[in-house]
Amino acid sequence: MSRISNTDLQELIDTQLPWVRAMGMTVETMEEGRCRVRLPHRDEHLRPGGTVSGPAMMGLADYAMYVGVLSAIGRVELAVTTNLSINFLRRPQPAAILADCRMIKVGRRLAYGEVFLSAEGAEDEGPVAHVTSTYSIPPDRAD
Amino acid sequence: MSRISNTDLQELIDTQLPWVRAMGMTVETMEEGRCRVRLPHRDEHLRPGGTVSGPAMMGLADYAMYVGVLSAIGRVELAVTTNLSINFLRRPQPAAILADCRMIKVGRRLAYGEVFLSAEGAEDEGPVAHVTSTYSIPPDRAD
Amino acid sequence: MSRISNTDLQELIDTQLPWVRAMGMTVETMEEGRCRVRLPHRDEHLRPGGTVSGPAMMGLADYAMYVGVLSAIGRVELAVTTNLSINFLRRPQPAAILADCRMIKVGRRLAYGEVFLSAEGAEDEGPVAHVTSTYSIPPDRAD
Amino acid sequence: MSRISNTDLQELIDTQLPWVRAMGMTVETMEEGRCRVRLPHRDEHLRPGGTVSGPAMMGLADYAMYVGVLSAIGRVELAVTTNLSINFLRRPQPAAILADCRMIKVGRRLAYGEVFLSAEGAEDEGPVAHVTSTYSIPPDRAD
Repeated sequence: MSRISNTDLQELIDTQLPWVRAMGMTVETMEEGRCRVRLPHRDEHLRPGGTVSGPAMMGLADYAMYVGVLSAIGRVELAVTTNLSINFLRRPQPAAILADCRMIKVGRRLAYGEVFLSAEGAEDEGPVAHVTSTYSIPPDRAD
Repeated sequence: MSRISNTDLQELIDTQLPWVRAMGMTVETMEEGRCRVRLPHRDEHLRPGGTVSGPAMMGLADYAMYVGVLSAIGRVELAVTTNLSINFLRRPQPAAILADCRMIKVGRRLAYGEVFLSAEGAEDEGPVAHVTSTYSIPPDRAD
Repeated sequence: MSRISNTDLQELIDTQLPWVRAMGMTVETMEEGRCRVRLPHRDEHLRPGGTVSGPAMMGLADYAMYVGVLSAIGRVELAVTTNLSINFLRRPQPAAILADCRMIKVGRRLAYGEVFLSAEGAEDEGPVAHVTSTYSIPPDRAD
Repeated sequence: MSRISNTDLQELIDTQLPWVRAMGMTVETMEEGRCRVRLPHRDEHLRPGGTVSGPAMMGLADYAMYVGVLSAIGRVELAVTTNLSINFLRRPQPAAILADCRMIKVGRRLAYGEVFLSAEGAEDEGPVAHVTSTYSIPPDRAD
């Protein structure tokens, strides 16, 4: 079970990460250490030809990691990305993009996970990108 | 001297990368294998508190690498990012962000470089982020 | 089924990668796009306290990726690592280390995969390191 | 000026990192936040053809970062690598390899730097590899 409620997550997004709402991203599923986030298919995220732009995929992966971290450690306001490494593997179909995040290690100071991005409806063609990312957790959180 | 003209670069941006113009980014300097790109200080790039958001910094770095690659190889329409790895080092001041890109290796198939991001007017406080990135160059380009 | 035979793999190791034999590494399982490689517990791989050294784990991961790539594309002599990124997650127990490699994307020019390293007998404590790596495949291979 | 003395560094190597001595690596220069480390040209580090093996270059880069971190923070016994990402750029000449390390950010909990590897006597051909790496600094060090 996720260690952060949907209500608390939504409140953090609204107050801390306005770009998440502006991109139209939604949390599809969330349990402890795992989540799926969806980026809708919108003109503003596209490159000519209908391919989703690199920055839109990076924003999606970063948000999926944020949700993944909070699902594992609970409401922590100051968790910040220290590293994000993305490998682009295929041009995505013109479709919504799904981000499946899984935390690999959640320690006291650092949380590390991976995210697979795939085009909705074309998941069996393989991921369009793979991301690893590290979050730093502030030392004074109550736990 | 850059191997792509400002005019050709601008035409590629307009037709291929509309998100670059939407973010208001501008090329400040460009020579062969090096460039400086600027992201203006705008509300839409910010997190509460005035800090530039991670996705805005990733978009800036990705664009700086794109300009750096084309400055070294000339007009190649299908150069694409294969990897981008960003390390966030400090919370940036509420200011424009400068991206200084330098190509480290430009081969026939792969181009690799690094980008230092710093807050305009606070460059002496050190970079706010460091990026390495690899671009794949299509095999059939004329050169 | 693996696209390279054990015999062909062994011959490549003996002629191309003498450090693999020197480290005592063995391929435990191999199928198309997946493998498990084992690094034995030896004094020369250790740091004081019995922890396996970082370079030994990097050598193990690099070899596991090499086997994973050849299991997917067959005998290609000139496949070379272009990137290897390792995240160290826990100090390993004083034990043999197992490397589980899975290829994520195998294209014509680049192959990309991930490797989880864990201490033999302590796999349920979670991985001691996670690696992503890209191999470049020479353009003129017959396929 | 380096914050660790040559004597203290040597003592740490002898007690903590026996593989450094076994590989024959030496610190050529060291000042605060910068160093140059040298890997001699030896058969055991080579691939057939005389090229230095990937693991030997990774061990060299890891050691150069270790020296770079200690040159900036002083004698800290438990500083450990959390990430090392290496990009291989050219096949090195059959020669000693020089590793030039520069710390980019040294914080209280994390230290981040980069290392350029080049073949001795062929530095003007450009680096053979580029590395970024993060070290974790134990929270209880006195400073």
